[in-house]
Amino acid sequence: MSWHYTASHMHHRAIKHCRQCGTAVHSRIPDDGDTRERAVCPACGTIHYINPLLVVGTVPYLGDQVLLCKRAIEPRYGKWTLPAGFMEMDEAMDEGAARETAEEAGAEVDIGPLFSTLSVPRVGQVHVFYLARLRHDRFNPGTESLEACLFDEAGIPWDEIAFPTVRETLRRFFDDRRRGSFGLHDLRIG
Amino acid sequence: MSWHYTASHMHHRAIKHCRQCGTAVHSRIPDDGDTRERAVCPACGTIHYINPLLVVGTVPYLGDQVLLCKRAIEPRYGKWTLPAGFMEMDEAMDEGAARETAEEAGAEVDIGPLFSTLSVPRVGQVHVFYLARLRHDRFNPGTESLEACLFDEAGIPWDEIAFPTVRETLRRFFDDRRRGSFGLHDLRIG
Repeated sequence: MSWHYTASHMHHRAIKHCRQCGTAVHSRIPDDGDTRERAVCPACGTIHYINPLLVVGTVPYLGDQVLLCKRAIEPRYGKWTLPAGFMEMDEAMDEGAARETAEEAGAEVDIGPLFSTLSVPRVGQVHVFYLARLRHDRFNPGTESLEACLFDEAGIPWDEIAFPTVRETLRRFFDDRRRGSFGLHDLRIG
Repeated sequence: MSWHYTASHMHHRAIKHCRQCGTAVHSRIPDDGDTRERAVCPACGTIHYINPLLVVGTVPYLGDQVLLCKRAIEPRYGKWTLPAGFMEMDEAMDEGAARETAEEAGAEVDIGPLFSTLSVPRVGQVHVFYLARLRHDRFNPGTESLEACLFDEAGIPWDEIAFPTVRETLRRFFDDRRRGSFGLHDLRIG
């Protein structure tokens, strides 16, 4: 799944009509003890919540190299990213991360431990990356990727990375690798 | 914020009308390369995605005791839980966890490392708990809690715990505490 959303789509004012009955909604604080404005239906009372989205992905590595995908879609067309995308309803985080890695890079991996969790309040997202050992170096990029390549630390196109969460995750990966021990990195971006 | 959602509310078929224009939606696979059915508007083309929700909370501890809240709301009225609730758009995960701890228990904590991440595909949720050291043993339960109490491991009302994710997190906490080292526990429930 591609990155359809932007921050403006995720504001409660982006909801104009009630999902239950189609009536135009109002923006107000519900009477149930809530403290924030929500899109509330004046006809049937349905309250529409907007909550952060989970993006799940992997750091696919082979020896001292990491697999990056060159994006074939907006936003950030032509920039490099780790394979990642929006988590679906019927999967665990690691299952979603493996699915995105197969879809975007056509890469076969063994999913390892959770490596980074990055909250991005500006866009209402949390990005989550798992370490993932590549089984071999043959890839088959999907329609969302122009190409998929292995890079060592010196070769990473640092100025052409699509998202700050990917850059921070890559930095931590190579730092931890030098140190010989991988931790869990929980960060706030912006 | 309380736990308004249930699994059935989170299925795409729960969306009956387009949020942009109010037209009745159809359930179909979008033409953009997607592989899953979504609620699609036949009038304006808006695709409505349903994605997993993040629930953020803490394991508030003082010495060998953990703070639990007795729920004053459905679901699981009268059962015990760790303070947790739905993450909001404008916060990082640890900020949401601290907010819920203040709202539900009136507890003052110093947020520590991420401790457990639990995917619950059955209800389309991911629960996330941080270790949180209590600054003192004075609490002020909010309207969502009947009471807030400290329990040591033997005193935990194991049969009266509200959610499997809370039970698993508590078990891991006391196991790690005995071991003298706290890890990160990434689990799938169900």
